[in-house]
Formats: sequence, C-alpha cells, structure tokens
Amino acid sequence: MATLPAVRKVALAYSGGLDSILCVKLLEHDYGAQEVVLVMVDVGQGDEGLAQARQRVSHLPLKLVTVTAREEFTGQWITLAIRANGSYGGYPLSSSMTRQLIAARVAEAARREGCDAVAEGSTGKGNDQFRFHNTFTLLAPELRVITPIRDLNLSRADERLLARKYGLSYKEGISDDLTCWGRAIGSGEIGDLSTQVAAEEYLWWAPPSSAPEQPDRITVAFREGVPVRAGAAQGMAQIITMLNKVAGRQGIGRIDVLEDGIMGLKSREVYEAPAAAVLLALHRDLERLCLTKRELEFKALVDAKWAELVYHGHWFHPLKSQLDAFIGASQRHVTGEITVELHRGTAEITGRASTHGLFDPATRSVERDSFDQSRMTPVVETYAFESAQLGGRQQRIASA
Amino acid sequence: MATLPAVRKVALAYSGGLDSILCVKLLEHDYGAQEVVLVMVDVGQGDEGLAQARQRVSHLPLKLVTVTAREEFTGQWITLAIRANGSYGGYPLSSSMTRQLIAARVAEAARREGCDAVAEGSTGKGNDQFRFHNTFTLLAPELRVITPIRDLNLSRADERLLARKYGLSYKEGISDDLTCWGRAIGSGEIGDLSTQVAAEEYLWWAPPSSAPEQPDRITVAFREGVPVRAGAAQGMAQIITMLNKVAGRQGIGRIDVLEDGIMGLKSREVYEAPAAAVLLALHRDLERLCLTKRELEFKALVDAKWAELVYHGHWFHPLKSQLDAFIGASQRHVTGEITVELHRGTAEITGRASTHGLFDPATRSVERDSFDQSRMTPVVETYAFESAQLGGRQQRIASA
Amino acid sequence: MATLPAVRKVALAYSGGLDSILCVKLLEHDYGAQEVVLVMVDVGQGDEGLAQARQRVSHLPLKLVTVTAREEFTGQWITLAIRANGSYGGYPLSSSMTRQLIAARVAEAARREGCDAVAEGSTGKGNDQFRFHNTFTLLAPELRVITPIRDLNLSRADERLLARKYGLSYKEGISDDLTCWGRAIGSGEIGDLSTQVAAEEYLWWAPPSSAPEQPDRITVAFREGVPVRAGAAQGMAQIITMLNKVAGRQGIGRIDVLEDGIMGLKSREVYEAPAAAVLLALHRDLERLCLTKRELEFKALVDAKWAELVYHGHWFHPLKSQLDAFIGASQRHVTGEITVELHRGTAEITGRASTHGLFDPATRSVERDSFDQSRMTPVVETYAFESAQLGGRQQRIASA
Amino acid sequence: MATLPAVRKVALAYSGGLDSILCVKLLEHDYGAQEVVLVMVDVGQGDEGLAQARQRVSHLPLKLVTVTAREEFTGQWITLAIRANGSYGGYPLSSSMTRQLIAARVAEAARREGCDAVAEGSTGKGNDQFRFHNTFTLLAPELRVITPIRDLNLSRADERLLARKYGLSYKEGISDDLTCWGRAIGSGEIGDLSTQVAAEEYLWWAPPSSAPEQPDRITVAFREGVPVRAGAAQGMAQIITMLNKVAGRQGIGRIDVLEDGIMGLKSREVYEAPAAAVLLALHRDLERLCLTKRELEFKALVDAKWAELVYHGHWFHPLKSQLDAFIGASQRHVTGEITVELHRGTAEITGRASTHGLFDPATRSVERDSFDQSRMTPVVETYAFESAQLGGRQQRIASA
Repeated sequence: MATLPAVRKVALAYSGGLDSILCVKLLEHDYGAQEVVLVMVDVGQGDEGLAQARQRVSHLPLKLVTVTAREEFTGQWITLAIRANGSYGGYPLSSSMTRQLIAARVAEAARREGCDAVAEGSTGKGNDQFRFHNTFTLLAPELRVITPIRDLNLSRADERLLARKYGLSYKEGISDDLTCWGRAIGSGEIGDLSTQVAAEEYLWWAPPSSAPEQPDRITVAFREGVPVRAGAAQGMAQIITMLNKVAGRQGIGRIDVLEDGIMGLKSREVYEAPAAAVLLALHRDLERLCLTKRELEFKALVDAKWAELVYHGHWFHPLKSQLDAFIGASQRHVTGEITVELHRGTAEITGRASTHGLFDPATRSVERDSFDQSRMTPVVETYAFESAQLGGRQQRIASA
Repeated sequence: MATLPAVRKVALAYSGGLDSILCVKLLEHDYGAQEVVLVMVDVGQGDEGLAQARQRVSHLPLKLVTVTAREEFTGQWITLAIRANGSYGGYPLSSSMTRQLIAARVAEAARREGCDAVAEGSTGKGNDQFRFHNTFTLLAPELRVITPIRDLNLSRADERLLARKYGLSYKEGISDDLTCWGRAIGSGEIGDLSTQVAAEEYLWWAPPSSAPEQPDRITVAFREGVPVRAGAAQGMAQIITMLNKVAGRQGIGRIDVLEDGIMGLKSREVYEAPAAAVLLALHRDLERLCLTKRELEFKALVDAKWAELVYHGHWFHPLKSQLDAFIGASQRHVTGEITVELHRGTAEITGRASTHGLFDPATRSVERDSFDQSRMTPVVETYAFESAQLGGRQQRIASA
Repeated sequence: MATLPAVRKVALAYSGGLDSILCVKLLEHDYGAQEVVLVMVDVGQGDEGLAQARQRVSHLPLKLVTVTAREEFTGQWITLAIRANGSYGGYPLSSSMTRQLIAARVAEAARREGCDAVAEGSTGKGNDQFRFHNTFTLLAPELRVITPIRDLNLSRADERLLARKYGLSYKEGISDDLTCWGRAIGSGEIGDLSTQVAAEEYLWWAPPSSAPEQPDRITVAFREGVPVRAGAAQGMAQIITMLNKVAGRQGIGRIDVLEDGIMGLKSREVYEAPAAAVLLALHRDLERLCLTKRELEFKALVDAKWAELVYHGHWFHPLKSQLDAFIGASQRHVTGEITVELHRGTAEITGRASTHGLFDPATRSVERDSFDQSRMTPVVETYAFESAQLGGRQQRIASA
Repeated sequence: MATLPAVRKVALAYSGGLDSILCVKLLEHDYGAQEVVLVMVDVGQGDEGLAQARQRVSHLPLKLVTVTAREEFTGQWITLAIRANGSYGGYPLSSSMTRQLIAARVAEAARREGCDAVAEGSTGKGNDQFRFHNTFTLLAPELRVITPIRDLNLSRADERLLARKYGLSYKEGISDDLTCWGRAIGSGEIGDLSTQVAAEEYLWWAPPSSAPEQPDRITVAFREGVPVRAGAAQGMAQIITMLNKVAGRQGIGRIDVLEDGIMGLKSREVYEAPAAAVLLALHRDLERLCLTKRELEFKALVDAKWAELVYHGHWFHPLKSQLDAFIGASQRHVTGEITVELHRGTAEITGRASTHGLFDPATRSVERDSFDQSRMTPVVETYAFESAQLGGRQQRIASA
C-alpha cells in the first residue's frame, strides 16, 4: 500500500450499504483521494432503496451520479439469462450479473468524470471482488482498481467501529442483495448447515402452509426464447414483478444451496427468486418442445459454460459473447405458450402449445397405425451392430 | 420373414401384459415354434402382479420359469443409479433399467433351457425394442431375436382382435410399467400436450391439495453414496417402500415430460416416482457437501453419459462399466446424513451433516477474522491477468 | 418395392462413376421412371473429370444439368471447415461435405425441373446414403428419395454385370473421391490392416524419400480465421491448389486411419490432403496465439461437435448453424501470419506474427524483472485452498 | 515474511540447478533455518546429472537424501500417462508429472526426518510453484511450504549475483528439464516467436535432413494399454531408452508450442520427446482398433480432463484417481501390436494386429455380399426422422 502513489480522483461504486459508505472515508483518509465521485447504478433494486442510499450521503460534500441501467438489465441481461437457462449450482444467476453491470457503468462514469481510479466495497472473502476487478480491468485497463475493505483487511466488526467513528449511518441486520431477478439472503453469513432463515426474512416467498387455497394458473407466451406475456402482464418488467408476487405467495422460488465459490470454498446460500424460478422452468420446457434432441444435448453444455463464465466474472469475456451467438441462433424456434399451475410450492405444467414444436404424436402413438412397424426390424438390428461385435469378441476371447 | 427357418425352442420374456401373452400364440402360429418357455423376471413389480400374470397362462401347456432379480435390482441396479444421479431428461431412469435386466435374465434362461431363440413383446414404436435387442445381442449373440408384434406389424386394435380370437385374457385400461423405483403411465399413449392424467390413476402420488396438514421430516443416512437408513427404515428395499408411501402422499414425485426417444421422436410421458425423486435429490445435495467443485463439475458429464447409455439400452456396454468405475471411486466420501421436510409438493432440505464434508465456514465467514484479506489483492489481480491482456488488445487495436 | 407407385420424373445425382451411371438404367427399368434428369454438381473435382462424365452419357437421350458450386464449396464450405478446424478422427473432412452440397443442389434442381423424386447411387454399406437422404429430406421433404443400388441389393460384381448388359462405360480400378480439399482412396475397399496403398496411386503425395533436397518455406496470412495469402497465391482457390502441389511433393498430407462410420462399423480409410493438412495445422496454431485458454478449451468441444455433425450428414441441421454462429464469433481476432517449413514429411512452424496475439513475453519471461514475484505467494496458497481442505479431511478421517 | 516464525528444520527439493542450490543459503540466511536436509529424487534424469548435483554440494555440511523413484515414474506414472494419451496442448506431459512425484517424495522425507517445513526453488513466473505447493499441501498439510526465490523476488540476475557471493557453482547455459519421458528446453526463456532452438541443443532429436537413408521399422506390442515390447526391447524402461535414440535420430519428437500456463499467460515452449511421441501415437491408434466409437468419444473427454489436472498440479486430487479408475477399466481390450516405420520426421503406421480388435471387414466391405443392402433402406429413413420433422416445420412455417 505504502508504495502506491496517492489517488487523484476516484469513482466509487456506491450501493448505500455499510461497505460502500465506509469506502468514501477510507479513500480520503487511507488512500489520500483528492476527490471521490459516488456512482450509483439503478439495476431495479427499487426506488426506496435508491432514495435511502442517497439520503445516507446527503450530508457529505460529494458528487453523486445515478446511472439508470434498469431497462438494460431487464431487457438485455435477464433476457440473455433466460435464453441461456442461466442457473449455477441450482439457482438463478442474479447478483453475479448485477456486479458486472455495475462495474461496467462505473468504469464508464470514471472515464467521463476524468478519474484515475475506480473503487468498490468488496471484502476479501467473497466472489464480488473478482467480478468487479475483472470487469474494470477488461473494460478500462488504464484505471487503477481500489478495494479498500479488503486491502485494509477490515472485519465486519472493524467496519462497525469505523462507521461509528466517522458518524456514518447504515442498515443493520442480515445483509441481502436485491434485484428484480432474485434476492440473496445472508450470503456467506450462514455458517451452519442446519439453521433456517426465518419465514419473515423473505420478501416474496411464503411457506406452502400459508399459501392460498386456490392455485394460480398462468399462461406465459415466449417469442424466440423471451417471455412476452404472462396473464395480463406484458413485457419483461411487468411479467417479473407479477410472478415474484404470485409465485412467491404460492411458496415457489426459495432456494437453499451449498455453493462452490470462485476460490473453491463452499458457502451456504439462501435465495428467493419466484419469477426467475418459474420463467426458467417454463423456458426449459418450451425448449424441450421446440428443439431437437441434438440441440438440447449440446445446448446443455453451452448453458453450463455460460453460467460458469457469468458466475466467475467473465460477462465481457469474448467466450461469453461467442456463447451468446450460439444461444441467440438456438432460440429461433423457441416460440410458444406454456401454461403453469402454481400451488403450494409446486409449479405444474398443464399446457404446452407451439406452431414451432416438434412433438408429432401421429407418428409416435402406439394406438395409431402410423407406419409399418416391421420396417423397424432392420433398424433395431443395425442399432445393435456394435453390440453384436462386442458379443462376438467376448465369445472369441472366451473360447481362445 | 418367409425366408427365415422355423424356430425350435424359444424363451419368451413374459410380463402378463397383452403384448407378451399374445406372443405365445404368435410364436406358435406364425413362427412355427415347437416349444415356448415363458420367462418371468421378478424385478419388484409386486406379488399380486406376478400372480395375475401366472394365472393368465395357467391354462396353457407351457413351461413358465420365474427368475428372482428383486434383490439384484434394488441392491445393484438402483444403487448404481443413485450414485450416478440417474435421471434422463428430468425423470429417474426406471423402465430402461428393468428392460435390460429382464433381457439379461431371459438370455441366461434361454441358454439354460437350450433355446435357439429369444422373444419379447415390444411394438415397433418405442424404445424397448432397442433395449431388449441390444442386450440379447451383446450377451448371447448366438441366439435369434424375435419381436413378433413389431415384425407382424400389429396395431393395438389388431392385438385386441387376435387376443379375442385366441381366447386370451389381459388387463384393459391405461398401460403402465411398474417397478419399486418408478411407474410409467401411458407411455406413448398421451397424444395431446394438454391432457392431464386423472388423480386416481396414480398409485402413490396424491395432489398437494389433499396432502396431510403436517409435514413429514425424515433423515436419510448415506454410506459411500448409498442410502442405508431413512427414519426407521433400514436397507434399500425398506427405504424405497417407505418413501414411495410417505413422499407420494405429500405430493412429491409426479413428473410430466416431453421425452426424446431413441429414434429421435418426442413423446409425452408421465411418471410417478416419489422415493426416487427424494433419494436422488438428497444424494445430489450430499455430493455438493462432500465432493470438490472439480469433481462435481466433471461428474455431471459422467452422470449425463451414464443416463444416456442406460436409456439407450447400453447397460452392458463397456463404456457403461467404465463410467461405473469412475462413479464408484467418486463415492468414497459421499457419507453423511441429510434431513428433508416433505410437505404438500415440496421437499425442503433442513439439515446436512457429514464428517466427510468440505464445508468450512471458519475460512469463508465474513464475520470471522479468518485470514488477512489484503493477501487476496494479488490473487484477484492475477485472476484478472487474462482480462488485462484482453483489455490491452482492445486498446491497442482501437488506437491502431 | 413392389407396393411403391412408379416414379414420374426423377433428378439423379450424377458423378460419372459406375454407381451413378448404372442408376440411369435402373431408374427406367426397375422403377418405371418416365424421365431422368442428370444433375452434375461441380465442386472442384476438375474439368477433366467433368468432361469424361459428360462423355460417358452423351449417347443417352437425357437432359444433363451441370450446377457450378465450386466457388461456394471453396469460399463457404471449406472456409467454415478451416474455422472449425474440421477434422474427424484425425483427417480433414472432405467427401462428407461434398455429398451434402451435391444433395442440396440436386434437390433444388429437382424442384426447378418439376421432379417428384431424387435419386443417388450409394450402396447400403457406407456413410453417403445417410448424408444424401438426410439432406434431401430436410431440404425437400416432399420429394421421394430413391437409392437404386442399395434398394436392389446390387454387389459390385452385380453392378459390373449390369453395366456390361446395358453397354455402359466407366472407369476401372481403385475407387476414389476427389475434391480440391482432399481425396479418399479406396474407401471401404481396404479390407486388410497391413496392405499399403502403392505410392503411384497418390495424386499429390510423394513419399518423404523422394522429396526435394531443399525445404519449402511458406508464409500464410489469415484474416479472421480465413487464409487470404500463401506465398504468391491469393485467395482460397489458388492457395489450395498451390499447397496441394508443394506440400504434397514434400510428403505431407497422407492419412491412414481406422474410421468409425455412421453405422458404428470400423473401416480403414486412406486419404491424401496436403493443402488441408497444412492449412488446418497453421490455423490451429494461430488460434493458440490469438485465443485465450478458455476459448481454446471450449472451442475444442464445439469443433468436435461440428465435425461429428458434418460427418454424420447434418450440415443443414439447426445445431450446425448454431455452432457456426459460435465459430464465426470466435474468429474475430484470428488474424496474423504463420510461417511453415515443409520438408520431407514434416511441417515445422518457424514463425508466428499477429497484432491480435496474446503472447506477452514481457510478463512471463523469467529473465525480466516484470513483476514482484512475492505477490504470487498468496496466489499459490489460494490456489491450494482445495488441496488444504482435502489434506485436512484425510488427516481428520485417519485420526478418527 | 517478517512476521513468520523461523524455520527449525526444512527438507529442500534439490535438483542441482542454480535455483535449488541457492535455496540452501537463503533458507539459512533469510529464513533462519537451523537445519536443511537436501532431498534429491531420482526420476530417471540420468546418473551423470545426479552425480554432478551431489558434487556441487559436497563441500557443504548438509545431509543429502537420495530417493529412488525411477521405477515408480516409469512403471506407474508414465504407464498411466500412456493409457490416458497424456498430452496437453499438443505435447506429452512430462515435467508436470515429475514435479509432483518429487514433491510427494520430499514431503515423505520431511516427515521421516522430522522437519517442520518443505522448500523448493521455483520462481514466481511459472507453473511449478503451483504443482509443488499443491502437492505439499494435499499430502502434508501440517508442513509449512517455503519458496525462497519467489518469496524474496529474486530475478535470474539476482540469483547469479548471490551465487557468486556465496561461492556456489552451477551449470550455465540454456536451462532444461530432463526425464526419460521428455525434455523441456528453455521453458519461459524463449521470448520471441521466431527464434529457433539450435540443432545442437537437442539431446535426442536430429533434423530430418540429417536422418539415416533407411527407415527404422519397429513393432510395439501393448498389453492392456501398456507397451511391453518394442523390437528387441522389453519393458517400459528399455523401450523408452531405445525409442528416444531411434526415433530421435529419425527426426521424430521435436515439439514447438504456445502453451497456456496455469496463470493464463501464454509461453512458447520447445520440447523433445521422441519415445513419448511414438508411443502415444501408437497407443492412440491401437485404441481406435479396440475401442468402440462410443468409448473413443467419451474417453477423449476423460483424457483431456486428465491432462488438465496433471498439468495444473492435481495428480493427487480425488478427481484424478476417479479418472484413473475409468481409464484403467477402458484398457481391458487395448491389447495388440502396431508396426511403425520411422523415417525422416514421419512416423507411418504400416501394420495393426489385435485379437481384441473391432475391425470387421467382412461386414463393411463393398466388395463382399455380406448382407442384404435393401435392409438399410428403413434404417436410413429412420435416421432421417428428425430431418423430416425439421423439413416439415420449415414448410409449415413458410406456408403460414
């Protein structure tokens, strides 16, 4: 640290949480920053949260820039995630996307504002430090990246002490990360494998026991892999808002996993993501109707690699855009309507319709006389050519 | 057909269903078989079904051999399937295993009885014809394989007519395939994407709306990937029986999928498999606790290939046994206890414990002062070496 | 056969070989075709071959349509193959491409000419029957596909007899399949694992012992994955012609493999493909310079699937075009020059240059003081986190 | 550094090169080590080299332990590598194995000698620091790992200065790493893409222009994937020695690649590995004869992952032993003899023989009347079911 030159002007990714509020002071006191610009990126975390974040620093003589990326997040990032069936280790990717979207917008703002550095409030324990740093470095390699909490090795207790010392206000309680696409609860804080997150900690999700008596039945229309209508809701933003509410109260979308982080350490994570859970399930089902066996099989590999890259902070990596090219081309026929019945923790698909579908019951049905079955005899025999050779070898060797 | 020599003595895979009953007559009348030996393989389909099947042919002057493979199916085949997380397109593999186990036992019986042919009752529309033929050919390449329904191109209507003509009795109604590990309902018969199987057609499964008020909480102990205890149940057979009952009535284990068959045609399939659904979910979760990120990632490929081979009739293929060698070695540390709460369609994991686990909250926790975070700075920077090079290239090209 | 209606007008894929010449007569005599249109597709097999083929049917009262696809083959198909490093089981894909290109053009001609069927001369032993049929079916599902040699079960001896009967002339000797991109010699005819193809059977290739004293040194320039210049040769067609000659006489590009055909049967195949061998090796090397580790690793999977699809007759499958989308995007930075020295069977790369390259000796060199090595200590320790956990578990279990 | 306690007794991996000689002094002076035990592991680098290494430290009052691992390296490690077709980025894995074998033996010696630390001479630029550290940590997590050159940030120039100061003798010139299985030349030192390693720097390899007039023809016998005889040579050690000599002088086994290191940086590497090049090529060819298409396809993935793990320092990772279990099972039928003709840079396979082979020319030959080809008609049509559906969809959509 000592040998690094002082920072002139730094753009700080600001969220309103304890980590990033404290960074303002650390940049000035510990890094000698002459000027700090707060950059707050709106990725759909909600107007209330944004207002609170603004409020918390209103007494400080700082420039605060708000960048709107809400439409971009919903219309581009989530759209790509749905087409890629974007889940990692069993839960819908969410924070891993917003971190990189925020880093990209902060890097842009830093250039616009003439900064020589960017900063963000990650600790040294988690995945976000990698996602921010990687994105900053790829998009703006000329800027210095500062991560004060980690570089100064501050524990959460240290942070609380310093916040008091500097007279900073922040939200107490279990930490969370909220976007419209999902909410991570207490990431890295649940140090026990048997502790349950209390029901009242959830924003959308309710336990099946408190679910409505009646199911909710919703038909979602997809066009080329993208949801365009769900019940009365039109467009991604409305659809997601509606499904978080409706699927959440039906007990859908609570996820409790052991996750393998970027450093190879396991952590227990709890998420709630009702809309994402439903939309990903339906998209996957529609793909099974509209894509061939070969496409489904290979796309599973592409999707897994896509999720791995996004999770590991490589949204802007060239391989990621190559995967997007593949995925984009694959969605040409993923158009149709899936009906789902949401009830007490279960999401049951009750209808499927698509003019692009490849389900052809006329040929497959055992009831109909669709083709001369005896023509399958040589097919089955040819299929068994390899088995015949293996069986023959076995006999040859046994008798030798 | 015409050019083939008449069959002397044939071992027929007999299940008691219309297809295989009719084959007895077809083998005699259409293939000139001098002797038909019925081979019935008990894979745990239930004593009642076996007794009915015996009853249906008791009036015929035939030898009926019953081969017990119940313990082998539970103790070896299902065990391998659990360790392999054996599911294909989203449902637990079941019939695809029993077809091949039956074929193997029928081939053995055919040799023991001095037969020159084996026969089975598949139609030419489905997957079983491939599974039977492949297994017969690999294990007993010297035997002729006969598939009368397909070779004579009989539709279901033709079969009913012939059954009446020959005075054969059989069960009417929706066809199913039952093993302790799962039940396929109306395979290939559901020609519509919106038809629902009526609730009363299910053997174990009950809709969430009729589930008990109270959840069932069960702790399952695994040793090296194999369930050894679940609540009071000991051993695979007891555990499976108990879970089919308990998880079924809690609305778990109903599966409705579009499946890509061996010929590449899609068919809609409905399964119920409460015990399999629960055990596979818990096994998978325990693996996430006890295997490293690298193992989990590669085993996903191995498991997918395992399922593909089993589904496509390659249980006895050398590649399958190579995958089993991998999987066997991978389970050495998959030992521990997982607790699940079953309630109204949801199976929620509420406890995990293992002395072999790799979850180490002491290092990962953001609350504890487990390591000097500033040591992560060069780690993150090294992680971003590639990004730095990509960013540098971008700037180099842009300025050229 | 008997039950099929007679063909009215059929477009026959005509190459000038015995198989396709004989088909003309079989279509008339055995299928009752009222009109046969010969469609000859020029994919760069050479003007001499085309003239001979025309000559052989000049006495017959038939319409012969020649379709030029030479530029398309070189400029599009081979270009895609180079970008995809298109080899299957160790040899450059060639015939598998031309079969499908020919099928596509024949199907188009058939529609233009108002045919109700297409025909081609494959036997029932090889891969081409699958490639033709598949392409015909996908592009023109309304046309009947006829494969007379196979359907009438004619052996090579039968064919020779019939050719004499019908007074047809054809080339004797070892069969081959020639395109500018490669030549397959005696496909399926080399029934012994130790027979060598005589040196004089090769068109381009000479044994290393008869190679020139001096090496040939050639620099090939690639732009976005496509060769644009090689020595004095410009453009794909010139480059390929030159390299077949120069690399061939230096003993490069003879390939002798055991190949796993579409039916799962192994066959021994001998190819010569000097230009393809060199260009694929150089392209691969340039990719290693310009693509990141992550891209190289995943593209290897994509390339393998691409080759599998092309070999198996799925050029026009949607998955193939999705892979092309990926591959196209991946080649953006594959621009640079590779110098190769060809001498007596070896192709040694002696120079690499690219402004898009990611080789950065300044950082990596052990001689230069490029970074503070002690910063790698925590990197290596973090890398070993997983090992530390595994080692700890081992000790924990051993001491329990 | 300052905060770490002094080392009591340390086992140093000693090779005789500058790096490890210097470490002796650094451990004493900079780490306050009370006792240093030199551990030299014989992995077949040659008696001369071992004697020189001993000589260089004979004047120092230190204990030097020599551990023999020659047979283990040849009989177990190389054997596994051949069965796994062990190559990474185009060259046979060699140093990456010996580093881990050495680390394992040093860790054992450290425990035997009652050390509290292990040390090794890697710099902070290459891959070996990861391989050593990882192995040490996994096998002996209780020992501290010291890497003095890296931790003290010594450049090569610094090292030379210090060696002079301490009066240490060492070999000048291009660095190399030699085992019987391959030799790495100037790793990380070739900072230019067009520099050639001079012909006289090679130990075994001679340029094709100086190769003998006559070819060498050698038949290699494999049993279950392991070479057991080659010409007159018996057993792995003899076979490797002979082939390095014979294939080397025929110009085989020189490899010049761009390699993607563990940190993601590219480096240019030159290797010579004549025996490895030949044995891997023949083993691969024998696998193509004795394994099915399915096995070959999946084993390619397993082999690639095996090489990745070994290269990245995970020889003792559980996933590696799981891959070994797979690979071991896969070699059951890889038994037979391959004949190769080595001449002027080319290795041409001229004979293949195996009683376990799956090549069956009787079925495949186009000359023989092995089966009724017309039976292939429905096979080809079924194969095209998917294409028919895709073609039908295209027409349906076009006409809508």
